[in-house]
Amino acid sequence: MLGLNLDYPLLVSTIIDHAAVSYGDTEIVSCGRVETIRTNYRAIAERARRLASALSHLGLGQGTFVGSLAWNTHRHLELFYGVSGFGGVLHTANPRLPPEQILYAVNFTGYHTLFVDLDTVPLAEQLAPRLETVDRFIVMARREDMPATSLRNVLCYEDLISTGDPGFTWAEVDERHGCALCFTSGTTGKPKGVLYSHRGTVVSTLSVGGGNGWALSADDVILGMPGFFHCNGWAVPFLAPMYGCKLVLPGRRADDEFLHGLIVNEGVTVAAAVPTIWLGLLDHCRRSGQGLGRLQRVFSGGTAPPAEMIDAYMREYGVRFSHGWGMTETTHGATVSFAAQGLQHEEAVAAMRTQGKPLYGNEIRIVDEDDKPLPRDGKTPGHLQCRGHWIAGAYFRQPEIDLQTEDGWMRTGDIAMIDPDNTLHIVDRAKDVIKSGGEWISSQALEEAATRHPAIREAAVVAMPHPRWQERPFLIVVPMQDAVVSHEELRAHLLQHVPKWWLPDQVAFVADLPHGPTGKIQKEALRRRVAEGVIVPTPL
Amino acid sequence: MLGLNLDYPLLVSTIIDHAAVSYGDTEIVSCGRVETIRTNYRAIAERARRLASALSHLGLGQGTFVGSLAWNTHRHLELFYGVSGFGGVLHTANPRLPPEQILYAVNFTGYHTLFVDLDTVPLAEQLAPRLETVDRFIVMARREDMPATSLRNVLCYEDLISTGDPGFTWAEVDERHGCALCFTSGTTGKPKGVLYSHRGTVVSTLSVGGGNGWALSADDVILGMPGFFHCNGWAVPFLAPMYGCKLVLPGRRADDEFLHGLIVNEGVTVAAAVPTIWLGLLDHCRRSGQGLGRLQRVFSGGTAPPAEMIDAYMREYGVRFSHGWGMTETTHGATVSFAAQGLQHEEAVAAMRTQGKPLYGNEIRIVDEDDKPLPRDGKTPGHLQCRGHWIAGAYFRQPEIDLQTEDGWMRTGDIAMIDPDNTLHIVDRAKDVIKSGGEWISSQALEEAATRHPAIREAAVVAMPHPRWQERPFLIVVPMQDAVVSHEELRAHLLQHVPKWWLPDQVAFVADLPHGPTGKIQKEALRRRVAEGVIVPTPL
Repeated sequence: MLGLNLDYPLLVSTIIDHAAVSYGDTEIVSCGRVETIRTNYRAIAERARRLASALSHLGLGQGTFVGSLAWNTHRHLELFYGVSGFGGVLHTANPRLPPEQILYAVNFTGYHTLFVDLDTVPLAEQLAPRLETVDRFIVMARREDMPATSLRNVLCYEDLISTGDPGFTWAEVDERHGCALCFTSGTTGKPKGVLYSHRGTVVSTLSVGGGNGWALSADDVILGMPGFFHCNGWAVPFLAPMYGCKLVLPGRRADDEFLHGLIVNEGVTVAAAVPTIWLGLLDHCRRSGQGLGRLQRVFSGGTAPPAEMIDAYMREYGVRFSHGWGMTETTHGATVSFAAQGLQHEEAVAAMRTQGKPLYGNEIRIVDEDDKPLPRDGKTPGHLQCRGHWIAGAYFRQPEIDLQTEDGWMRTGDIAMIDPDNTLHIVDRAKDVIKSGGEWISSQALEEAATRHPAIREAAVVAMPHPRWQERPFLIVVPMQDAVVSHEELRAHLLQHVPKWWLPDQVAFVADLPHGPTGKIQKEALRRRVAEGVIVPTPL
Repeated sequence: MLGLNLDYPLLVSTIIDHAAVSYGDTEIVSCGRVETIRTNYRAIAERARRLASALSHLGLGQGTFVGSLAWNTHRHLELFYGVSGFGGVLHTANPRLPPEQILYAVNFTGYHTLFVDLDTVPLAEQLAPRLETVDRFIVMARREDMPATSLRNVLCYEDLISTGDPGFTWAEVDERHGCALCFTSGTTGKPKGVLYSHRGTVVSTLSVGGGNGWALSADDVILGMPGFFHCNGWAVPFLAPMYGCKLVLPGRRADDEFLHGLIVNEGVTVAAAVPTIWLGLLDHCRRSGQGLGRLQRVFSGGTAPPAEMIDAYMREYGVRFSHGWGMTETTHGATVSFAAQGLQHEEAVAAMRTQGKPLYGNEIRIVDEDDKPLPRDGKTPGHLQCRGHWIAGAYFRQPEIDLQTEDGWMRTGDIAMIDPDNTLHIVDRAKDVIKSGGEWISSQALEEAATRHPAIREAAVVAMPHPRWQERPFLIVVPMQDAVVSHEELRAHLLQHVPKWWLPDQVAFVADLPHGPTGKIQKEALRRRVAEGVIVPTPL
């Protein structure tokens, strides 16, 4: 007995159409290298149709991949709609990755057309000789700003879309059709592709924008810092038009003064970025004695924001934090923290720091080594798995990787605990956790404890084999310049934050740690240095 | 190129599961005839599974219809999940309708099992001899409260669910499968059925609960007044668990003092009801000098709320209004008004009174007699059509009714204007609008203008044939007791609110007007009275 509702597809094109018709005058502020553009959803939608039309005329059709190597601008926003709108798939390559990783992802996907920004042209020139399939570069600029370049077959974006039909009819693809492709950052091994569907993108955006997530309405002004190449910019290119929000796109710049100016001058109410940005902005406000204008809510992701910072934003500026947890495999994110209005200040800060709960349409669970569910008791750690509309079921063209369980949950590779009310606490990456006498020690928690010592700049913990306990933690520390920390002092400090049996057996003081392209410590490289005797442990 | 997201269904069961896992302790307060129950989502979900299991054991399977004749209680809430959860469809019959209309809908659908409340048992007894297919009555009560009744084959709800399996696995039906069935109130002709799908219900709930709609979060406490038989209670049975809100269900009672007590004592933040309820509550507060506790937002539907009332709620109690427009054919509703934070008070009141904009996932347009789109210029009236996930494409078992246009839009039967920003203004029902010299005169606007006169209790306008102008308005007025209004005074009053050419040519003063079961004036009956000479027009 099928219901009798009209058949209406969950396609990305319906998002920009909604914005164009109901919020056509709502502003988009886009900071490019040579121009700051003020436009609106009516114009963006029309330009995206022109783009889809022009690309169709170039011979691109349903299922065609297209790449971008670009910052967050209105033109990049148009790509999400213009490419998915002719039935294509947009691969948002990350210009900040090492060339090897960009090349790998583009060549692995194997497409012809790459969109570049004015200031990613030099990078494209550097990559070009080793791009195996790309034979057309579209520079996202006006004719008068087009650069001299060694790239061959170069088109000007504005010229291209001027040839497109503003009345182009969006392709009516299956809602399970892909619309965007992101690659993992590949800190270990080769990057892996995650192909997002229209349906997953739309349902995620609806849910993530709701009151237990971003709580967006047409009263909001969003500043979208996360690169569109990171989980599609944490959904910002879809959230803003779906909820009719004014959208501020910072382009390439991310310095404190610039961001502060955007927040205050554009009336930003909601902003998203990694904790580093929030630390810098807080510092900037304190030094300059300036406020944060209309800013109300902040979304933070990547790593857990320090409690002191959340506390400062709340007390000093009345800004509330949400912390989300996600990965490339969870599209825009899997969980978001939520501090109820009635909580005391300290409780609120603690709630904001957790990884939060899954929003409607996504589920989380923890399991043992045999995928058997473990209790949500807030103290049992297990392998975190999730499932839902916007969770990956497989990697792009790598079906051999065992991402999904037999009963349809995605293995995240994280170790976590879950509270009885379904609040998530990430413990560690599964491959970094130290298995000691049948129990787990979180390398992340140890590192966090160590870096709370004022003389320690950075810390990393790796597992060392142990005859009796199987593994024991080895702490590698980068001290602050000219600082010295005694073993005794370090032990005493750690014991304030972690149980006694977690105390690392061994320690080493080093000048630096190896970092990956997104700033994460490369544990694999670190383990190699230990194995090769470059880093030598001494008993703690 | 299909995306690689996990396949995850848009089923109603996922809503209650989400609430049970993430908001298991969140309270539901249910006011029954003999008991006020405090329960929570964990319990509701378990009881709904028991119900689904028990009904399966009774032989009910996928596609089986089940009826309810009941008020808004936790057990009725359980029916939405317990029935759709075994793959059945819940027909929520309206106990306030005349017996003829209830009988028609139940017999037309033709099912065996009818759920009744303790205080709808007498109604069921009255209906029973003429119910053609119902042969099992389930009284939603505890064993000790079961009444003596002439009904045959009666089961006790609590006994029934105690036999069910709390670990029942929800049926995995197609997401386009029906989950609930409502009938139009049938003021003209026979009621027509609208069969809602799982998919439409879930997407509507996600969208309606968002920031431009109900703006719900886990901080909210919802009071759900609209009967679950009216557009599924305006989505409340789905909104509250999806967004983790505490839910207050008033049962049958709707008196001011009782509602006021619930709002204040239960900490209600959001409440939904028709304007009559809000007028009564305002009056109660003013008379008693009491406040409205934590109440922040009010959702009003049915007819446009008076501006004076919206103004009073805002000024006196800081409560903001939203006005929604919808019909049985639009599931939970089609548009919602939204007043931006920056608006001046008067502008905000005016914005709240409009029919608002469609939320994401639904579209509106106006067309001429040939279904050709008309401009969104805020002044051209046309036939309103909509399309989207939760809009009906056909009537239940009446495919012959021409509900849908060739290009897939639903004909609403309303005349409306749409602003350039997509804000909807309903002018009139198409069948009530007066076609005068090629222009339209809104009978609703004339009626509203007339009733703003202090001596006029009620007014109705019908079309009278006219040799030159085709039709001209005829105003039928019910004066306040002992009040007299002269023709001159009436003309002068109307001219303050409507253009001169709208002035009714004829007027009649009567003692009462015919009303339908939901309180609407029955224009058909009125036209008959005019045709039969019961009401005699005199020139105005």
